[in-house]
Amino acid sequence: MRNIVLHISFNGTNYAGYQIQQNANTITNEVQKAIGKVFDKREDIKGCSRTDSKVHAIEYVLNFFTEHTIPIHKVPFALNCELPEDIVVNTAYEAKDDFHARYSTTGKQYLYKVYNKRLRDPFLCNLFYQYPFPIDEKQLNQAAQTFVGTHDFLSFAGKKVKPGSTVRTVFSFEVTREGDFVYFRISGDGFLYNMVRILVGTLLGICEGRIDPDKLREILKAKDRTKAGKTAPPQGLYLEKVFYLENM
Amino acid sequence: MRNIVLHISFNGTNYAGYQIQQNANTITNEVQKAIGKVFDKREDIKGCSRTDSKVHAIEYVLNFFTEHTIPIHKVPFALNCELPEDIVVNTAYEAKDDFHARYSTTGKQYLYKVYNKRLRDPFLCNLFYQYPFPIDEKQLNQAAQTFVGTHDFLSFAGKKVKPGSTVRTVFSFEVTREGDFVYFRISGDGFLYNMVRILVGTLLGICEGRIDPDKLREILKAKDRTKAGKTAPPQGLYLEKVFYLENM
Repeated sequence: MRNIVLHISFNGTNYAGYQIQQNANTITNEVQKAIGKVFDKREDIKGCSRTDSKVHAIEYVLNFFTEHTIPIHKVPFALNCELPEDIVVNTAYEAKDDFHARYSTTGKQYLYKVYNKRLRDPFLCNLFYQYPFPIDEKQLNQAAQTFVGTHDFLSFAGKKVKPGSTVRTVFSFEVTREGDFVYFRISGDGFLYNMVRILVGTLLGICEGRIDPDKLREILKAKDRTKAGKTAPPQGLYLEKVFYLENM
Repeated sequence: MRNIVLHISFNGTNYAGYQIQQNANTITNEVQKAIGKVFDKREDIKGCSRTDSKVHAIEYVLNFFTEHTIPIHKVPFALNCELPEDIVVNTAYEAKDDFHARYSTTGKQYLYKVYNKRLRDPFLCNLFYQYPFPIDEKQLNQAAQTFVGTHDFLSFAGKKVKPGSTVRTVFSFEVTREGDFVYFRISGDGFLYNMVRILVGTLLGICEGRIDPDKLREILKAKDRTKAGKTAPPQGLYLEKVFYLENM
């Protein structure tokens, strides 16, 4: 059996997330249909993570087993012919049997994109969070360092958080600006449900005076979702990288 | 009566064009609803042109008469609060009584955006025509000059062309490249139904060897739609400017 790994990008605008759902169009449904056509049957596909409705991926990793003999270099083109134009396979390769797109991850990196201008741009509405208030990106970058390290992120977990450990390690968290665009880039060993969007919403709360930057550590220690800021909207969020051990 | 003029931008992705249609969401529907809320009644709105489903506008001009006393500088913000985020009012001003967004035009400028790369980008699918074959933009720019001037453009008119004159004057037509992006920019006194998209499709036909660049003048003289190239898809097309006489 060949263990085939795909790196895909997708524009989540028109999808109800990655995971299979009844009565909703999801990325998995589309990818399964395309794999079904190219590999002659619907394979059991392992995705690296769930993503919410309207959330995007610059690099999403998935794998599946197959007996099909199609040369690996032909896989991206063959699948791209079957996929809708808002999903694309960038690369395909074969991995060892024990590689699993979800369970083998050692971490992930997310990018949250903000368009920071008073007047909105109708061409950016599905790809950026359009935020009209002034953002001091240096202040937010400094504040973001509060979250780097190993913490219990219960205050930053959405409603659907699973019972059990809410301790995660954030490797890095940077806030930068390029003209009217502000980027929040965070990497860590794992993220709770809505955690990145709540972290971004909390930092943006500083810009509106709703969050005191000196109280971020208190909010973290409170382990209480109501102490943190709003959940930033989904369309600004991109899964940017998935980390695995070098030898897979 | 005040004659109020709006310059709006819209992302046409989710709309069935500008014109009012039954059982379809159009830009006009949304603009009328917003004007209805801000100006207390649904005004009769004059739009500068019809646009097709999925076609965008960087600058679309419309006007309407009202007795309402709202200060003109407050109009954009008030309307933007009511409009969906893929439509935005950029400016509002008052014009003389005889200004009509459609009948007062002296010309229009369209921009057609192509993303020229073999592998598609899922984040550009609604805003660019993703074209995988190599484009020699200098060759196309030279070929485009065939269309500058006053000609009968019947060969480049879509099915729904109205009977009567199909003579139009193209002021300028330029093809330029910025990295992977190729831009077709055309201005003229008026355009037939689908004319810009057929002109772009015909020029792109040169890249695939389907159109002989030396035969463009013959295609123009044939006055026969079947001699020209394909109609380029709508999502690459943007109404960019609308021209009026200086004194309106």
